[in-house]
Amino acid sequence: MKVEIEDIEYAREQIKDRIIKTDLNYTRSCTELIGVPTYLKFENMQYTGSFKIRGALNKVLSLSNKDTISNVIAASAGNHAQGVALSAKQVGLKAKIVMPVMSPIVKVLATQNYGAEVILHGEIFDQSYEYARQLEKEKGYIFIHPYEDEKVIAGQGTIGLEILEQLPDVDSVIVAIGGGGLISGVAIAIKNKKPNCKVYGVVSAGFPAMKLMFNQEEVPPYSPIGTIADGIAVKKPSQIMYNFISKYVDDVVEITDDEVAKAIVFLLERTKTVAEGSGAITLAAAAMAKQNNWNLGKKTCVLIGGGNIDMNMVAKVIEKGLTANGRIVRFKISASDRPGQLQKITNVIAQHGGNILEVFHNRIGKGIKFSETVIQIVIESKGFKHIESMKKSLVELNFKVKID
Amino acid sequence: MKVEIEDIEYAREQIKDRIIKTDLNYTRSCTELIGVPTYLKFENMQYTGSFKIRGALNKVLSLSNKDTISNVIAASAGNHAQGVALSAKQVGLKAKIVMPVMSPIVKVLATQNYGAEVILHGEIFDQSYEYARQLEKEKGYIFIHPYEDEKVIAGQGTIGLEILEQLPDVDSVIVAIGGGGLISGVAIAIKNKKPNCKVYGVVSAGFPAMKLMFNQEEVPPYSPIGTIADGIAVKKPSQIMYNFISKYVDDVVEITDDEVAKAIVFLLERTKTVAEGSGAITLAAAAMAKQNNWNLGKKTCVLIGGGNIDMNMVAKVIEKGLTANGRIVRFKISASDRPGQLQKITNVIAQHGGNILEVFHNRIGKGIKFSETVIQIVIESKGFKHIESMKKSLVELNFKVKID
Repeated sequence: MKVEIEDIEYAREQIKDRIIKTDLNYTRSCTELIGVPTYLKFENMQYTGSFKIRGALNKVLSLSNKDTISNVIAASAGNHAQGVALSAKQVGLKAKIVMPVMSPIVKVLATQNYGAEVILHGEIFDQSYEYARQLEKEKGYIFIHPYEDEKVIAGQGTIGLEILEQLPDVDSVIVAIGGGGLISGVAIAIKNKKPNCKVYGVVSAGFPAMKLMFNQEEVPPYSPIGTIADGIAVKKPSQIMYNFISKYVDDVVEITDDEVAKAIVFLLERTKTVAEGSGAITLAAAAMAKQNNWNLGKKTCVLIGGGNIDMNMVAKVIEKGLTANGRIVRFKISASDRPGQLQKITNVIAQHGGNILEVFHNRIGKGIKFSETVIQIVIESKGFKHIESMKKSLVELNFKVKID
Repeated sequence: MKVEIEDIEYAREQIKDRIIKTDLNYTRSCTELIGVPTYLKFENMQYTGSFKIRGALNKVLSLSNKDTISNVIAASAGNHAQGVALSAKQVGLKAKIVMPVMSPIVKVLATQNYGAEVILHGEIFDQSYEYARQLEKEKGYIFIHPYEDEKVIAGQGTIGLEILEQLPDVDSVIVAIGGGGLISGVAIAIKNKKPNCKVYGVVSAGFPAMKLMFNQEEVPPYSPIGTIADGIAVKKPSQIMYNFISKYVDDVVEITDDEVAKAIVFLLERTKTVAEGSGAITLAAAAMAKQNNWNLGKKTCVLIGGGNIDMNMVAKVIEKGLTANGRIVRFKISASDRPGQLQKITNVIAQHGGNILEVFHNRIGKGIKFSETVIQIVIESKGFKHIESMKKSLVELNFKVKID
């Protein structure tokens, strides 16, 4: 597979009137976090809420037999589904999207809203994928691969051209890696136009295969542990994509879900923007640039790839992110089961200026003695020091305190 | 008090290099919601996360005796605090901000981060305000009122000039009303430059005083009920601000917290942007333009005034907003207390494609019979029809079902 800078420039001409040239803005709060002037490229504000529309659109526009074909097909429960759906609609083709049976309702509705037919098939994604390929053969539909496709890669690469236009003196660009289509396209664009600019890649710690391959380490068989960054949860690394990444990308690191959660909350709270896990993971990686021995230079561009995060997940992530930052703490306190204990505890917390969010009283759970009660308290705290000082005061009153 | 268009134009010159000219963008999703081409003005992306910096900055820059005074003071637990803090820092003055003792930690930290000294004083805001005015007299500090100030109003009015520049053919602008400084400034700018452009105001249903005054209805004494839109929770309407509003504003409506919650979630989910209650309330009002008999014309601009919403509140609002949209439902199901009941229930829900988020079993609560158990189930649903069909199936199995 071959993608040249000319393919990306051509893709740009093809798609530019049908997509948003998303903002690339300096952000003060991210600059403080990272220690280097930082610019965010907001592909979460792209049509369909992610960059995926670029590749899909370039692909459908390239179909030379648009008049004779009627259907494109893809397998995806995520952003690729919406990208293909809207692209097909824009050029007057019908899209069929195969999704696993248990896909979140929101994703199904969003894809249908863009005019696609959703086919629920398969327990897991691999089965949906196989079914889509089967329909491709049986019905003659055009299958649109999410990354192993020259047109798709070139489409995603248009982001690289925009970054260079919007921030000509950029020194480093940070991009998430799922299948690898996005980073391949962006890196080809940037390394051709500005070879000194670093391109760094980020995978989820739950799906580190491409990082291992990049470092020429053995890739163990996948063990399913899930990730908040579900947009880049790709189990098997593609040799084709590896060829691009090993050639054009400077380094690849992995980032844990805890760090991703913190980054999502940071973006919500400080930059007022909604990023999905695979969108925020780049900011998390940038914040760890020193540990990673990355050379961000004088100006870094962090690509926020998408914002399609389930609202229920946002609520969960906020709690996880606040916990990871010491802004929420869960104390599990063992107390003797007699009157006045909770009053003592709440007294301590009030004195320290902690704000109680929830209280659970458990008197009959497993492992709890008859004379004992376990009180779980969720507190809005000011940070880890604050948590420690509350804990210390509780211990001084002979409570047994665990942080949950 | 008098504010002329020249004052606003002068304010613009004064502050323009120290603030962000925030984006005003067409948004497809809001256009679909409202039915008229809709442009959002993103003052939530302003420095300090709200428009308040504009007025505060114009005020501190206007102080002719900057060399002899040393301190400015304000009373606020919200955006005005941060606006004054950062403005003072920018011109080399010290800021003191009086906040109620129980102010959220996040607000205190944010204000301190901008270099201000936070003075925690008073149980409620009125006491903080009185204390600030007392310090003004005793110490000679310069008090910066959040709205009853010509310079502050002129500063907020610069948004009106930007809107006319960014969208010259705008037909209507929707602005939130707390004290009334923002809408007064914006309306003066717009009605002077483009008299045909409508300016509509929105208050929170929990704090409707200015709406009642506008409609020449009696304003009853305030009864505290709170609101998500805490940024515009102003108890007593100001006669001074009423004079501006009655002269320059076309209509004022009130919006309930449920509608605000829906609008916050809509902005998060569809436009990937974080708005606080008083920022999203304008979108909620625009969505009800027909009921309000508003004439939005061919292009409407919805001002998103701020994005400083507590992350814990975001989590709560998401749940409230999803519930209000039928995307989450809480069933309270009475069942006989014997094995297999929960299995029957979960079976029905699975068949309908509902996604169970939480289950509570209550066997010993008040009013629950010995032979009975009450099962509360929180379900991710597809809308009100979906909820009704699940409920119907449960009732057919002889469960008593309440929607909580």
